[in-house]
Amino acid sequence: MLPNSLQSAIESLSDLPGIGSRSAERLVFNLLKNETGLARKIGEHLVVLKDKICECEVCCNYTEHNNEQKKCSICQQSKRNSQQLCIVESPVDLIAIERTHEYKGMYHVLHGIISPLRRVSPEDLRIKELFLRDFSEVTEIILATSGTTESEATAMYLAEKFDKHFVGMANRPTVSRLARGIPSGGDLDYLDAGTLSRAIVERRQF
Amino acid sequence: MLPNSLQSAIESLSDLPGIGSRSAERLVFNLLKNETGLARKIGEHLVVLKDKICECEVCCNYTEHNNEQKKCSICQQSKRNSQQLCIVESPVDLIAIERTHEYKGMYHVLHGIISPLRRVSPEDLRIKELFLRDFSEVTEIILATSGTTESEATAMYLAEKFDKHFVGMANRPTVSRLARGIPSGGDLDYLDAGTLSRAIVERRQF
Repeated sequence: MLPNSLQSAIESLSDLPGIGSRSAERLVFNLLKNETGLARKIGEHLVVLKDKICECEVCCNYTEHNNEQKKCSICQQSKRNSQQLCIVESPVDLIAIERTHEYKGMYHVLHGIISPLRRVSPEDLRIKELFLRDFSEVTEIILATSGTTESEATAMYLAEKFDKHFVGMANRPTVSRLARGIPSGGDLDYLDAGTLSRAIVERRQF
Repeated sequence: MLPNSLQSAIESLSDLPGIGSRSAERLVFNLLKNETGLARKIGEHLVVLKDKICECEVCCNYTEHNNEQKKCSICQQSKRNSQQLCIVESPVDLIAIERTHEYKGMYHVLHGIISPLRRVSPEDLRIKELFLRDFSEVTEIILATSGTTESEATAMYLAEKFDKHFVGMANRPTVSRLARGIPSGGDLDYLDAGTLSRAIVERRQF
């Protein structure tokens, strides 16, 4: 019923997460009505996306192929604090932390978390690359994983590996993790018991 | 902070209706993780989308450029009932009607509705093309517009134009519109008063 090129555009868009066939249909018909060349623009960006982007050879964050040394913009900045190393699950988490302007150190991107259920083992993450890094200047390692059980298990796995890695070292970096507690603007009576009990246990002096 | 090609892919995707910058970010990062070549596939489809698709020279539905006569697949089918002509607002509405398998006649796609607020006048729609069509075989015209005020106004505008167009003709086509009433599976107490009052006024014998 639909022309082939329409049908295949709709089908490929509906392979995206969170976009069903109806949404894909609406997007494609909207692009057809659009007179600003948006379809071509998006198309051209997506065609080259995977070719242009690679992982930074230091922190594994996404970066562009165009520079010789394959270092991302953060690893290239000399004014960042190289004593701190923040370990995140994904590039989006890195962006979220950068948006806070609260952290000025270096990063390492794991590109996932250990998940036996989804068959993601430590070898699938950038853990090998993490332990190949130079820790001589690092004084603090921040495990900035999420609050889910799998994320916490990944953090614990890394903490143990760091413990072994730094064994016998004179100036061992401290390993910390993000504070757990009630979110800003959060209503106490809407909070889950887990978060609230963590907030009580880890209460701080006023 | 983000590489340029990532940033521009995110920005172009967030120009799509219903996709904000956060959703666009998630889509692009998901495409980067995807190993099946989905980004390139979607990109290639979108790049050629506008070039491949044109409007059918008869009914104004979307069709592909590749056939000589520029007729859509529905207008090409000889087994469809050419006595019925169904007028719809958009190609998606046509697809919705085709999905019901209830209608076997011809279509005409208006590509919009008259909307003084959004500065859409009758000249912006495919109304000129509609009245250039051959009505000699047509016995029924179905105005399959939506239930909104602007859609109903568009239907009324067309009904009046048909009235003038067919003046003095011996076998005038009847002009009908979709039934209004309670939707299948709809709960009476959740229905708006407008729909319910229409359903009472236009009640049918059991």
